[in-house]
Amino acid sequence: MATTQEVAAFIAAEFPQTKCVIREVGNRSATVLHPVGPEELRPGGTVAGPVLMAVADVALYVAILGEIGIVPLTVTTSLTINFMRKPAGDSSVVGVCKLMKLGRTLAVGEVWLYSEGSSEPVAHVVGTYAIPPKTAA
Amino acid sequence: MATTQEVAAFIAAEFPQTKCVIREVGNRSATVLHPVGPEELRPGGTVAGPVLMAVADVALYVAILGEIGIVPLTVTTSLTINFMRKPAGDSSVVGVCKLMKLGRTLAVGEVWLYSEGSSEPVAHVVGTYAIPPKTAA
Amino acid sequence: MATTQEVAAFIAAEFPQTKCVIREVGNRSATVLHPVGPEELRPGGTVAGPVLMAVADVALYVAILGEIGIVPLTVTTSLTINFMRKPAGDSSVVGVCKLMKLGRTLAVGEVWLYSEGSSEPVAHVVGTYAIPPKTAA
Amino acid sequence: MATTQEVAAFIAAEFPQTKCVIREVGNRSATVLHPVGPEELRPGGTVAGPVLMAVADVALYVAILGEIGIVPLTVTTSLTINFMRKPAGDSSVVGVCKLMKLGRTLAVGEVWLYSEGSSEPVAHVVGTYAIPPKTAA
Repeated sequence: MATTQEVAAFIAAEFPQTKCVIREVGNRSATVLHPVGPEELRPGGTVAGPVLMAVADVALYVAILGEIGIVPLTVTTSLTINFMRKPAGDSSVVGVCKLMKLGRTLAVGEVWLYSEGSSEPVAHVVGTYAIPPKTAA
Repeated sequence: MATTQEVAAFIAAEFPQTKCVIREVGNRSATVLHPVGPEELRPGGTVAGPVLMAVADVALYVAILGEIGIVPLTVTTSLTINFMRKPAGDSSVVGVCKLMKLGRTLAVGEVWLYSEGSSEPVAHVVGTYAIPPKTAA
Repeated sequence: MATTQEVAAFIAAEFPQTKCVIREVGNRSATVLHPVGPEELRPGGTVAGPVLMAVADVALYVAILGEIGIVPLTVTTSLTINFMRKPAGDSSVVGVCKLMKLGRTLAVGEVWLYSEGSSEPVAHVVGTYAIPPKTAA
Repeated sequence: MATTQEVAAFIAAEFPQTKCVIREVGNRSATVLHPVGPEELRPGGTVAGPVLMAVADVALYVAILGEIGIVPLTVTTSLTINFMRKPAGDSSVVGVCKLMKLGRTLAVGEVWLYSEGSSEPVAHVVGTYAIPPKTAA
């Protein structure tokens, strides 16, 4: 297991472009927040879809690392997103991840994405991650 | 139907952040290219997963608009990506989209993603898009 | 909205082959149960994957009909399943569905699948359904 | 690698319920055919969705075994299906699988599903399979 600080330091090093902030890690779950500004918006004032996918990817990665510790070679193998509502253009995006399965070589989790302050999800993601064998880590 | 120029102008207006360049549109397909530089790379020299998802999303959107014309309210409803190989860190990402179905209200397409110059796909995407009723367009 | 009896009668008519029994419908959710016998088992005593997909499909359909009433032309447009654990060969399969979105033309829901009596999910499904315009129903 | 006969014998033993017939195996691909009769039909004369998912699952499994040989513990880890057209009620279902990736521990493939005699796909599937380490096989 890794602490929030350890995971945050690793994410900052591995994903230097991400603006995601880790709110919580632990208990097979994670919450991350991504600010929304001009770079995330599409005309009309909604958040671009790939921003939501990126937030989900980080939330899943954070939740997994929180359980297995800092294992750099863990990689996304698949991700399915369903878009449900138009995100607010003036709110941060919040991603709440719960791991469904944490096996030796495969982790599966889901992420509910929200506009901060709203309880109606804007999208739902299921992602799978390959965890390298212990010797490779 | 829309020409490559019309689609390119629309994408530039709707997705002002994207670096994607449209190579081809037509015949229910599209090819787009995304340059890879420091902003797209992760340590170790591979392209970040969300970049691949964003390229696929644009390629699908371009292929659909190429068929139905400029219909601004067309929105992604779901997207599934499977990652297959590590993309090259020194090559552009190429997304080749083919539409599988183009109904009145739903379009489905697949995108193969490559590192430019390689014939081995780095990822595969299936996306679905909701097309608004004619009167809404 | 439709009652459990109305939905059960419709499912029996529309899916004459299914062995699924409806346990609960309502509140944007549904629980269905599928008995497991020789026809559902694979050698080694686990439940065949397609049985799990079929249970999820029925659970989603039941949850949607419970909200929108008996709308025969509602059709599955996509379904994603992640398998997590080997189901028990001597227990019924239980599918617990919650709808994530219920729009005018599109419904999205998730289903957790369990071996009856266990709280560890064996698989997770996300499905999308197209709802025909009112006049077509 | 396994011959068509070896794969067919294994499928008959492992999936005793399936009616799928193997047409071709090899070159990272497979074609299977599933007859359609009263058991596969829904009222109105279309093939039930779970039948299509089952055909795709067998096609993927056959294509993988054709490459890696008879490895019994290979299991489906995820499957995404998009339905595109109503299958004909009086034609067999044909599943044409191509493997996208065949790694040491993970295989990914796609399956196009058709009503026999038609060139318009009725559905498209992407599936992932976990291959056990050599020692476990």
